Amino acid sequence: MATPHTSAFGWIGAQRRAREAAGLVRTLRPRPADSPVLDLASNDYLGLARHPEVVEGAAEAARRWGGGATGSRLVTGSTELHAQLEWELAEFCGFEAALVFSSGYAANLAAVTALAPHGSLIVSDAGNHASLIDGCRLARGATQVAPHADPEAVRKALGTHEGPAVVVTDSVFSVDGDRAPVGELAQVAREFGAGLIIDDAHGLGVVGPGGRGVPYAAGLAGTADTVVSVTLSKSLGSQGGAVLGPAHVIDHLVNAARTFIFDTGLAPAACGSALAALRLLRREPERAARARDVATSLHQLLLKDGLLAVRPDAAVVSVRAPSPDAAVRWAADCRDAGLSVGCFRPPSVPDGIARLRLTARADLTETEVAGAVRVISRTAPNGASTAGS
Amino acid sequence: MATPHTSAFGWIGAQRRAREAAGLVRTLRPRPADSPVLDLASNDYLGLARHPEVVEGAAEAARRWGGGATGSRLVTGSTELHAQLEWELAEFCGFEAALVFSSGYAANLAAVTALAPHGSLIVSDAGNHASLIDGCRLARGATQVAPHADPEAVRKALGTHEGPAVVVTDSVFSVDGDRAPVGELAQVAREFGAGLIIDDAHGLGVVGPGGRGVPYAAGLAGTADTVVSVTLSKSLGSQGGAVLGPAHVIDHLVNAARTFIFDTGLAPAACGSALAALRLLRREPERAARARDVATSLHQLLLKDGLLAVRPDAAVVSVRAPSPDAAVRWAADCRDAGLSVGCFRPPSVPDGIARLRLTARADLTETEVAGAVRVISRTAPNGASTAGS
Ligand SMILES: Cc1ncc(COP(=O)(O)O)c(C=O)c1O
Ligand SMILES: Cc1ncc(COP(=O)(O)O)c(C=O)c1O
Repeated sequence: MATPHTSAFGWIGAQRRAREAAGLVRTLRPRPADSPVLDLASNDYLGLARHPEVVEGAAEAARRWGGGATGSRLVTGSTELHAQLEWELAEFCGFEAALVFSSGYAANLAAVTALAPHGSLIVSDAGNHASLIDGCRLARGATQVAPHADPEAVRKALGTHEGPAVVVTDSVFSVDGDRAPVGELAQVAREFGAGLIIDDAHGLGVVGPGGRGVPYAAGLAGTADTVVSVTLSKSLGSQGGAVLGPAHVIDHLVNAARTFIFDTGLAPAACGSALAALRLLRREPERAARARDVATSLHQLLLKDGLLAVRPDAAVVSVRAPSPDAAVRWAADCRDAGLSVGCFRPPSVPDGIARLRLTARADLTETEVAGAVRVISRTAPNGASTAGS
Repeated sequence: MATPHTSAFGWIGAQRRAREAAGLVRTLRPRPADSPVLDLASNDYLGLARHPEVVEGAAEAARRWGGGATGSRLVTGSTELHAQLEWELAEFCGFEAALVFSSGYAANLAAVTALAPHGSLIVSDAGNHASLIDGCRLARGATQVAPHADPEAVRKALGTHEGPAVVVTDSVFSVDGDRAPVGELAQVAREFGAGLIIDDAHGLGVVGPGGRGVPYAAGLAGTADTVVSVTLSKSLGSQGGAVLGPAHVIDHLVNAARTFIFDTGLAPAACGSALAALRLLRREPERAARARDVATSLHQLLLKDGLLAVRPDAAVVSVRAPSPDAAVRWAADCRDAGLSVGCFRPPSVPDGIARLRLTARADLTETEVAGAVRVISRTAPNGASTAGS
């Protein structure tokens, strides 16, 4: 072993110190399997991650197919289980075909890069998820960032371009939980012959009839110009992602998307738990509405306590904090009081505003919701309420 | 639903036709759980994907932790199981710290982007894996592609640059199975105060004492300027990836790597099966040598039959084919004869040469190896042998 020296990665020290000075250092806090803490931080919107059928779906798939897919999807990594999951996902969401990836992140990279060739234009919402942004950066096409949720701005951007174009948007934005104007975006895209890529990570399982998602609810499922990505890691309580769309588009992804071609197939266990969750949701469609109702209660109780909560369009409820530091302390105080909440702050937020991010789960009781709001209100920092400090 | 029309994605048709004309259309062929076909195509180098302990590792983890990690690693997605896996991986490979990702692809994107800041230089081997290439494309630093396995060219590239730099290379190249000159690369990097990022996807579990990997075998494990990525999806028979390195570098990734911060944590089942495989390998270190021995037999028998097989440095054995079409037919003929082999062709190969890609597995018998070679020789197209057609 060579004598350790620090020249090659020495520049990291300055970044570390800058982060420390700004109060923006992140630390991993591994959690135990059984914790008494009430979870309002995960994306397990339907409370399915630990459902016995979902767990058994994973275990059974591992037993039948092994611990891993053993290769990329085009070599040995496509099992009949992957095909079944793709079939049922496409059918549930109302699309002709689906393609499963190892993550929602990889699905988004694939959708954007494969559908924005050289010479094309991507119009991307300013609030889009990091994976869509990285997709724009990797794509051969040129990207124009449109102001958040602004179909008129999208129209203007499309008007400047000749050739293929796609409009790219989250359906439900991960930070504030607000919904994109997908109907208007689809109309604008159609006017210009552009495609529409919707990331329904936070819509699937929560929005629309039985949780069929935002595109389905907006009448866009199965249309020729709409492509949707979803993740299996949130309401379906598993891991992985998928792209849904017309069969010829999915076929194009099989041939052109690098994060599909050069990545090992999703583990059988993850396919198995996602499939079990999907079947549960189909059998118990009321779970989706229940997640939305919990979000609405949460929002109303927070408002009643004078907090700056954003009206939820799905199951994410965001509460403004006066500063990154205050948000971190607020989340820590909640945790000390037995409540786990998300804390989003720069640089993970597009607008620089720190907030607590609460997620409604379909399996929370009214008592749990009320208790959570009591903790959040009691620990709120000065400046967090609409009334000022 | 709108009337289907094809304008937005109409351009895909032309690409489809071009692919058809070139014989380069890819199609998914989902496999059944139990197949009589002999597998020389997967990356399950140690034959562990279906090992009872690995399977039980997945099932037990799903039962204890649920179907998914439920959130990003910095929110709810870090379990004690992730921490344990990171600890044991780092220890096994000889590094101070490790960070687990949802895939090897995501691990590579993270390592390259987080360690090549604005103003830095990346020197990337021409034969590097797609995920490293995408990492270069996403990074803020500038990339110079160096000819394959050429430390002198790397030296020249580094000589042109002031400021932070990293040299990026596969340890074992995925297509031809040849090994990178990592010792020389480390020396060149050190001369210029540059870091070295090694993707040990095909080295872990196969190369070095007990399968501790190429960096360990080369005396680079635990050095201050070496960062290694691995995948859990090949010799460990699971899914996921990891980055290994000095603790302050790993800590930097936690704070800066977008595919870590904005991605759901690896599913517990995948952590569980990878950890079980790692423990198996530690208990039965001879598995690694066995995989290499099988590769050597395979190579020697192929050479004896006059085929253009590349001497394996790990467990991948590549055999040249005269054309993409011939390679596809060759692989299909093998499959018809009960043998599954990989078929790599443009655009998935850096040099445009089509080949069969065979993978040695530690659990193949000499009889199976001999039988496989008989099939490959018998089905070889004209022009595949050293003797000409
Ligand atoms: C809007 C959005 N898209 C995509 C992703 C990525 O999905 P995954 O975590 O399954 O990779 C996430 C969250 O992680 C997300 O919030
Ligand atoms: C050299 C190399 N690096 C990285 C990867 C990506 O790893 P994963 O499939 O686990 O995402 C692969 C193969 O898939 C590979 O061959």
